[in-house]
Amino acid sequence: MAQAKLTIDLAALRANWRALAAKSHSETGAVVKADGYGLGANQVALALADEGARRFFVASCEEGASLRDALGSGPEINVFSGHMDGDTALIRDAQLTPMINSIDQMLRQVEALPGAPFGVQLDSGMNRLGMEPAEWGALRDIALAQNPTLIMSHLACADEPDHPMNAQQLQAFHEMTDGIDAPRSLSATGGILLGADYHFDVTRPGVGLYGGLPFEDAKPVVTLDIPVIQIREVAPGESVGYGNNFIAQSPTRVATIAAGYADGVIRAMGPQAQLWSEDTRCKVLGRISMDMIAVDVSALNGDPASLTLLGHMQSVDVVADWAGTIGYEILTSLGHRYDRTYLT
Amino acid sequence: MAQAKLTIDLAALRANWRALAAKSHSETGAVVKADGYGLGANQVALALADEGARRFFVASCEEGASLRDALGSGPEINVFSGHMDGDTALIRDAQLTPMINSIDQMLRQVEALPGAPFGVQLDSGMNRLGMEPAEWGALRDIALAQNPTLIMSHLACADEPDHPMNAQQLQAFHEMTDGIDAPRSLSATGGILLGADYHFDVTRPGVGLYGGLPFEDAKPVVTLDIPVIQIREVAPGESVGYGNNFIAQSPTRVATIAAGYADGVIRAMGPQAQLWSEDTRCKVLGRISMDMIAVDVSALNGDPASLTLLGHMQSVDVVADWAGTIGYEILTSLGHRYDRTYLT
Repeated sequence: MAQAKLTIDLAALRANWRALAAKSHSETGAVVKADGYGLGANQVALALADEGARRFFVASCEEGASLRDALGSGPEINVFSGHMDGDTALIRDAQLTPMINSIDQMLRQVEALPGAPFGVQLDSGMNRLGMEPAEWGALRDIALAQNPTLIMSHLACADEPDHPMNAQQLQAFHEMTDGIDAPRSLSATGGILLGADYHFDVTRPGVGLYGGLPFEDAKPVVTLDIPVIQIREVAPGESVGYGNNFIAQSPTRVATIAAGYADGVIRAMGPQAQLWSEDTRCKVLGRISMDMIAVDVSALNGDPASLTLLGHMQSVDVVADWAGTIGYEILTSLGHRYDRTYLT
Repeated sequence: MAQAKLTIDLAALRANWRALAAKSHSETGAVVKADGYGLGANQVALALADEGARRFFVASCEEGASLRDALGSGPEINVFSGHMDGDTALIRDAQLTPMINSIDQMLRQVEALPGAPFGVQLDSGMNRLGMEPAEWGALRDIALAQNPTLIMSHLACADEPDHPMNAQQLQAFHEMTDGIDAPRSLSATGGILLGADYHFDVTRPGVGLYGGLPFEDAKPVVTLDIPVIQIREVAPGESVGYGNNFIAQSPTRVATIAAGYADGVIRAMGPQAQLWSEDTRCKVLGRISMDMIAVDVSALNGDPASLTLLGHMQSVDVVADWAGTIGYEILTSLGHRYDRTYLT
C-alpha cells in the first residue's frame, strides 16, 4: 500500500461550524466550494446540513449541480460566479441560486429564468466580483422588485483585523444596502471574527470550518499519514534525491515515503518541511519528488510504517508557511491518490 | 460556465513519444504515474499503447490496478514502489510487475507470489528507491534465478547534462548489472537526451511526453482557457483582490477569470503570471484567489470571453518559473474542476 491515508474528522468540522455559528449574530451558512476546500464537498455539506446549515456556497454552477445531487432539495445552494453564459439549464435543473455580479448577468437571469430565485453580489472595494456602486444604483430598484434571496459582498482584508480596508468596505456595504429588506451577508470566517458589526443576516464561514487560520480556535480536521516504502543508511558525503540537493554530513537513516507534489505536498516546501513519528520530528531531506519524499529518521529507534505530515501536532497553516503560502492552498491541493477515511 | 477548459492533445503526446522513441537505442516505455502527469493516465496510456508502447510505469499498485482496467491484459504495468505490505492481491489480480526495492520486498514477493513476474530497482546513488550495492550483492544470484523482467535504476541529475553525477550513476549501474541477461533500464526523459550510453534495453520517458523540459523539442500537449466572469473599470488608487496587493496607478480594465489555486494555478505565481488573449499578453493583478484571478485587460479592444494560461504561446515550464517550480508540478497540479477535452 504505497497509498497515503487522509483522515477527515467530520466531528471536528461540525464543532468548528458550531463554534463559528455561536460567534455569528445571524444565520450561519457554509462555503463548500473547491470540493469542500479539498475535503469532499458532499461529505462536508451533508454533515453541516445535519448540523443545521441551510445556505451553502459554491464557486460555479457545475459544483452546485453536483452538490444538489448529494444534498437533495431543500438547502439553498448559492453560486458566487453568478449566472454565466451556458449556466441556465444547470441553474434551473439543480435549483441553484446564482449571485448576480453584473447587469449582463441580471439580464440573462430575468430573461431566461423569470421569477427564479437569485442573489446579488456587490463590490464593496475588492474589485473582484460583484456590481460597482454606480451599476447597482442603476439596477437596484429593478433587482429589489424581484425579491433577491441575498445581497452580499466580500472582504479583501478580513484576515488582518486592523486593516483600514475592513471599515471602508463595511461602510461601502452599508451605503449600498441600508434600508433594503432582503437578507444581507458580508462576512466569511475572517469577517465573523471582526465582530457583530460585520455579521448582518447571514455569515458564510469557509476556511475556519476546515481547521485553518484566521480561526485560531479551530479544531484540526485533516490528518495525513504517509507510508514508508523503504529505509536506508546513507554515509557521510552521499547525496539524496534530485539535483544532489542534500549531502549527508554524518551517518543518516533515510526513509523514502510515498507521497509528493503530485499529492499536494507543495514542492516549494523542500527541506523546510518536517513530519512526525508520534512525538518525534523528522526533517525532509533534499527536494520533494512527484511521488516520494526522503525523510531523516535517524532519531527514531525502530522503523516507522508511516510518518505524519498533517494532524494535531502540525496544522495546515504550519505546513503552508514552509511553502510560502496559506493553509487554504494546502487544503485545496490535497490530492486524489489518498485513501480517504471520514470520521463521524 | 465558470468552468475552465483543459484541452489535451493526444496527437502531440503521441508525436512526443515517437520522437523520444526515435532517440532511444532501445525499447521505449512510458511513465504514466500521477494520473499520467495530471492529464489522465487511462487516455494517455491507451494512446501510447496504440502507438506501440508495451511497458508502462506507475508509482503505486493502486494506480496500476486502475490502469489495468483501462488497458486490459497485455501491456506490462511496472510499479516503482514495488511490493509493499498489503499489495499482494492487487499485484496478482491486476497482473502488475512490482519493481522490488529491498530484501524485505523480495521476501514478500517470493513468499506471496512465487513465480510471478517482478523487476528489481537498484540504487545507483540517488538514495531514494532501490537496493544498495551491498544488499544487491547478497541477493543478486537468488533474484536473477527468478528471471526478473527488468533491472532498473534512476538518475538524480539527468536534467543537467554536465553534472558529474550522471557518469557516476552510469558507472555504478554498470558495476551492479554488467553480465546480467535481464533487460536493463536507467533513463527517463533526461537520460534519453544524455545519449546512447544511458539507454540500455528499455527507456522510460515521462515529462517529455507531456510537453515539458528537459525535452526542448517537445510539442505542447495542454491548453488551458479560463472564462471571464466579469470585467470592470478600476480607477487610480483603487485596489484589487486580497490584501489590497495591487493598487491601480492609472485607469485599468480588470477581468475576473474563473480559476485559481484550487485548480492548480499555484498561488506563488502571483502577479508574475501572464495570460494571453490571442497574441496579446495580459498581466495578473494582485493575489491569485482560490477560484478566481484578476487580470489586466486594458490592452484589449473588446471583452474577451476567456484568457489562455497554457498553450502554444506559453509552456508549462514558463508558467512554472513564475511559481519558482518545474513544469512537472504545473502538470500534476492541474485540477479536477476543468472541462477536459481530448484531441485525437
